[in-house]
Amino acid sequence: MTSSAAPPPPALLGRPPAGPEAPPPVGVAVLGCGTVGAALVSLLVAHSAVLAVQSGAPVDVVGIAVADLTRSRPAVVPASLLTDDAAGLVKRSDVDVVVELIGGLDPAGALIRRALEAGKSVVTANKALLASPDGIELRTLARRRGVDLLYEASVAGAIPLVRALRESLTGERIVRVMGIVNGTTNFILSRMADDGVPYDEALAEAQRLGYAERDPTADVEGHDAAAKAAILAGVAFGSEAVADDVHCEGIAGIDVRDIAYARRFGYALKLLAVVERHDGGTLSIRVHPSMVPETHPLASVRGADNAVFIEGEAAGRLMLSGPGAGGLPTASAVVGDLIDAVRNRGARTTAPAPEREPARLLAVDELESAFYVRMTVEDRPGVLAAVAGAFGDHGVSIRSMEQQVPGDAAQLVFTTHRAREGALRATLGALESLGAVASIDAAFRIAGEHEP
Amino acid sequence: MTSSAAPPPPALLGRPPAGPEAPPPVGVAVLGCGTVGAALVSLLVAHSAVLAVQSGAPVDVVGIAVADLTRSRPAVVPASLLTDDAAGLVKRSDVDVVVELIGGLDPAGALIRRALEAGKSVVTANKALLASPDGIELRTLARRRGVDLLYEASVAGAIPLVRALRESLTGERIVRVMGIVNGTTNFILSRMADDGVPYDEALAEAQRLGYAERDPTADVEGHDAAAKAAILAGVAFGSEAVADDVHCEGIAGIDVRDIAYARRFGYALKLLAVVERHDGGTLSIRVHPSMVPETHPLASVRGADNAVFIEGEAAGRLMLSGPGAGGLPTASAVVGDLIDAVRNRGARTTAPAPEREPARLLAVDELESAFYVRMTVEDRPGVLAAVAGAFGDHGVSIRSMEQQVPGDAAQLVFTTHRAREGALRATLGALESLGAVASIDAAFRIAGEHEP
Repeated sequence: MTSSAAPPPPALLGRPPAGPEAPPPVGVAVLGCGTVGAALVSLLVAHSAVLAVQSGAPVDVVGIAVADLTRSRPAVVPASLLTDDAAGLVKRSDVDVVVELIGGLDPAGALIRRALEAGKSVVTANKALLASPDGIELRTLARRRGVDLLYEASVAGAIPLVRALRESLTGERIVRVMGIVNGTTNFILSRMADDGVPYDEALAEAQRLGYAERDPTADVEGHDAAAKAAILAGVAFGSEAVADDVHCEGIAGIDVRDIAYARRFGYALKLLAVVERHDGGTLSIRVHPSMVPETHPLASVRGADNAVFIEGEAAGRLMLSGPGAGGLPTASAVVGDLIDAVRNRGARTTAPAPEREPARLLAVDELESAFYVRMTVEDRPGVLAAVAGAFGDHGVSIRSMEQQVPGDAAQLVFTTHRAREGALRATLGALESLGAVASIDAAFRIAGEHEP
Repeated sequence: MTSSAAPPPPALLGRPPAGPEAPPPVGVAVLGCGTVGAALVSLLVAHSAVLAVQSGAPVDVVGIAVADLTRSRPAVVPASLLTDDAAGLVKRSDVDVVVELIGGLDPAGALIRRALEAGKSVVTANKALLASPDGIELRTLARRRGVDLLYEASVAGAIPLVRALRESLTGERIVRVMGIVNGTTNFILSRMADDGVPYDEALAEAQRLGYAERDPTADVEGHDAAAKAAILAGVAFGSEAVADDVHCEGIAGIDVRDIAYARRFGYALKLLAVVERHDGGTLSIRVHPSMVPETHPLASVRGADNAVFIEGEAAGRLMLSGPGAGGLPTASAVVGDLIDAVRNRGARTTAPAPEREPARLLAVDELESAFYVRMTVEDRPGVLAAVAGAFGDHGVSIRSMEQQVPGDAAQLVFTTHRAREGALRATLGALESLGAVASIDAAFRIAGEHEP
């Protein structure tokens, strides 16, 4: 019955280990035991039987590396497994797979390197590392050593975004990936939009609720989203990019008035991460606030949720959304990768990790978009003509002009037709040097129904 | 540098085939060349270089089986590859993987069986077959032969739903999967809701636009969605179910008035497929119209799109949405599976396909929900008391009663608090036997923010 082309039956997969051929347990080291680490340990304990079936072998946590052995931890974390010698743990011969949840470049990068060099697969949620030059090196190392370096948890929590791009859509010509990948800023913008709360207050509330760190820079300046955009460029387009390649504008200090005006025009202000392919194979990778039409599905993403559109030539526009952070959702993504790593190890294979080309970037000035501009001008005759002239001189066509505060001629809000971003920048430069313009107070891209 | 635990480097994966070790091409037979088949061939031709890299081997279509050799086909389909001998094609020694796009039980089932028996992996979009008793047998056969039987395209088009459940969320304890998985009915319901078009007219329009078949039974009676629900029960809960296990109510003949009333109450009427886990590990698998709160993301799914919620204990509530049908989106899902099958074949492994338990079903009468009931009564004193009494006798608590048409006391619309479905059924039975009730015109479940 078997044709000559038939492969032999595979190794034990997808079945509970039993009988004389039962595979030995796979030893897992967990590096870092904060919110995500503790949630991971709780999931691995609670579901060990299911995991053994899914992985094809029992999955045993054999050690948990922490910085401070004296800190109190949830009861589910076995004290006997704790160690403060992460490097020693990675080296141990009973460790087959390493889960890195320390975060940051150092010492996480060095620990992952050691694990990969020793032929151990690695699962990580470390977006900063993955989007750094070290990340490129680690991916190359994993490829060379024939082991997995998996990172579903690094972008958009439990949303199976990385795997969808890496496996389901691997034959797809992706046109664009864009979405809301930072829950902290989305929480802040949602509070400002829904309740008219000013930025500082919304940020303070996010900090109180644990959505934002004490130092919120990475979130509000867009750096966190930029790292994720660089990771998505790699998975979606096979282009090796780092966070520094990403054009990045955050939401720090955004004026609640602009959010209210946006609403009046029928838009929600959202911090978007965008990776898109342009003519000639160049990529635009960027993070910036955009005014999104209220009818767009991204406009209704509230609170700390994440949502990402994947636009493929054949697949069409897919949206994936869900909790973008949090201990359990992130740990859930780690478990999915861990099962993958254990299965692949058993089958002596790896997840797809094709070699990447360096990203060829399109200058942000070349992008086209409609714009929103708010400015303060002197309230005297001729000012409007001068301002309109500055737009016209640079080929930026005005779509609407409004005095947003009735009776206050000094506050002007413009929207433009689509224009090159470089032209808009030049316009703003010219406006700033006009004596009649006191200040350019805000400038945002306006997204279309299908474009960021 | 290599620990004793390190596996040897894997076979050539994720790299372009080159050099003396270049793997031989993998031969693919495509059975069926309608809309999806032709789109698949166009994708395989257009992206052959990328596919070879992703799959680890060149992927060659070596034959395309069609029922009618004389029919004209798109130019992208090479006439030289066409045959009307599907069984002969499956047997050919140069065929390693079979893509089945014929649909229906027969001859698709027999062809897939032959392929699996010959150790060839199979990719299929055939939901009817997968949700039939034959489907169970084919899954068992594939498992025993150690080959892949993959079917991402059978549910929700290009949305990577099956893989997300099978791989990303494999360690997740799924609570519920629910969503809109039939684009035809969603198109009809959207037209009725948005434009007040009656059912027959919306159906005729769907047929004109190619969204609905000439015989629309499978869509409008919910059978298509039921097959998908059965498939999702397997992938999400490891429970082997067939379409006949699914409690199924369609939308045929739905009254546009009820959609208008639903809207007035703040709900959209949607045809939902639901699979959820209940106490004691029983499953409820069902398809029925539900009134969904307008704030619910499913309420805003318009036209022929699909959208599915996956609710996991750790992952939280994830939503995946996109085009649920169409040649290219479906073909895109097939390509993802095909790459998987070729990769797995090269690595001598398979995608996870754990053995399943037979589904233990919860009787639909045990479910709880709020309800909407519309009835025609005689306009005379005492009727309302009798009707209210029938609800009360069965422990169903009325939440609101309205005469929807001012001045027409004969048209009553009730909403209830949460009640057992069995109690509601008994209430409706009692109402029908009341002389004062002329007819029960409609009865729908009302979904909560988080429940179907």
